[in-house]
Amino acid sequence: MNILAIDTSSLVATVAVMNEEKLIGEYTINSPMTHSQKLMPIIDELLRGIELSMEDIDFIAISRGPGSFTGIRIGIATAKGLAHSRDIPIIGVSSLEALAYNITYSRELICPIMDARRNQVYTGVYKWVEHKLINVVDEAPLSIGELMDKLKEREEKVIFLGDGLNRYKNDIVNILGDKALFAPLYVNMQRASSVAQLALDKINDDKVNTQSYLNIVPIYLRKSEAERQYEEKMKRCSEKNE
Amino acid sequence: MNILAIDTSSLVATVAVMNEEKLIGEYTINSPMTHSQKLMPIIDELLRGIELSMEDIDFIAISRGPGSFTGIRIGIATAKGLAHSRDIPIIGVSSLEALAYNITYSRELICPIMDARRNQVYTGVYKWVEHKLINVVDEAPLSIGELMDKLKEREEKVIFLGDGLNRYKNDIVNILGDKALFAPLYVNMQRASSVAQLALDKINDDKVNTQSYLNIVPIYLRKSEAERQYEEKMKRCSEKNE
Repeated sequence: MNILAIDTSSLVATVAVMNEEKLIGEYTINSPMTHSQKLMPIIDELLRGIELSMEDIDFIAISRGPGSFTGIRIGIATAKGLAHSRDIPIIGVSSLEALAYNITYSRELICPIMDARRNQVYTGVYKWVEHKLINVVDEAPLSIGELMDKLKEREEKVIFLGDGLNRYKNDIVNILGDKALFAPLYVNMQRASSVAQLALDKINDDKVNTQSYLNIVPIYLRKSEAERQYEEKMKRCSEKNE
Repeated sequence: MNILAIDTSSLVATVAVMNEEKLIGEYTINSPMTHSQKLMPIIDELLRGIELSMEDIDFIAISRGPGSFTGIRIGIATAKGLAHSRDIPIIGVSSLEALAYNITYSRELICPIMDARRNQVYTGVYKWVEHKLINVVDEAPLSIGELMDKLKEREEKVIFLGDGLNRYKNDIVNILGDKALFAPLYVNMQRASSVAQLALDKINDDKVNTQSYLNIVPIYLRKSEAERQYEEKMKRCSEKNE
């Protein structure tokens, strides 16, 4: 059973192929090019590199978000297109949970933070309990202050990772001091191998089933800028009309 | 400062480019093709993918072994060739230490084992102490029995990883029981990003300096089959002549 895993929830484009025995290959590009430029070429290149084709892929694991709305849409659209062409199932996983999976078996809490703009981060808190990764604070868009309030009361040290560090690292250190740790660079970004492993583990634990590519949807956690502006405009219009 | 990292100490061919701020890209192929088929194409492809060229690389990090003699020779020869062409320095790291680096900040001991044939594994034992990876059992070629003797006396649980598991996993479980853990697939093979991070960390800690490509040498830990056979033949000859 070969899984093709894709994550485009941040600036990073990352793809991997894994089966039940090994990670067969992974290709990650963390450069400013757009996903529409990067994604299909790296899927194509990886399959060529490991001497497989889409015919050999049995299902697709996709990072459903949260994260960049455009990134998530490109990832899910690509996954749906590829799954449709071969009529194979998809499994969606959380981009935050996959990011936390990078820090294998750590003793500390793990807190992925992705910059959500508008002074918020997409975040959640995870912990390894008997070598299973457990969610201990629900995923949500929070201000860094709200997140710190949730973490201040806990005794454990916390490993932070994700692109939200670029903006909020100093704030975190100021508030949590020595309790805050930061992931080393080599695990501080999305990896499709983590998405693949998470999908495989969830299937093995019977926590989720694969689903048809027809009904998989993104996890945005928040309304898009366009929806928000549309709602505000509608509200203004109805106020005018009253 | 851009580091190009290469690891060909096992069947896995893996290359990565990192700077002080981020992992820029990584390409890993874990398929049966030979390194002479895989290595240069994936270096070339990765640089193209991240829109850099060899002109942008400031030094090369190479996994010096132990591991497959042929793999190590191909990796080091390639690193020397590339470093020579640009007159840039090289830094060599242990393939076992880089493998252990995959399990970031775990609380357990980490024991990479690489199949060394002739009923031995290349191994060593590592532990994260205050978020630095420390060597606690010297790297050496050992029989699985000798390795188990060293681990039986320790109280900590041990995470095993590496291609030696294919052959010795059952033996390890039989001897260590619940004390033995095994790395999940997504971190159970060489990753050039770990080689790059390890090189960067060693430089930052002033533990090693980069060196000229002229004098970097492999770490074999054991004599090659050809050397061994030659010595045996010489011994037989001298016995005959006595």
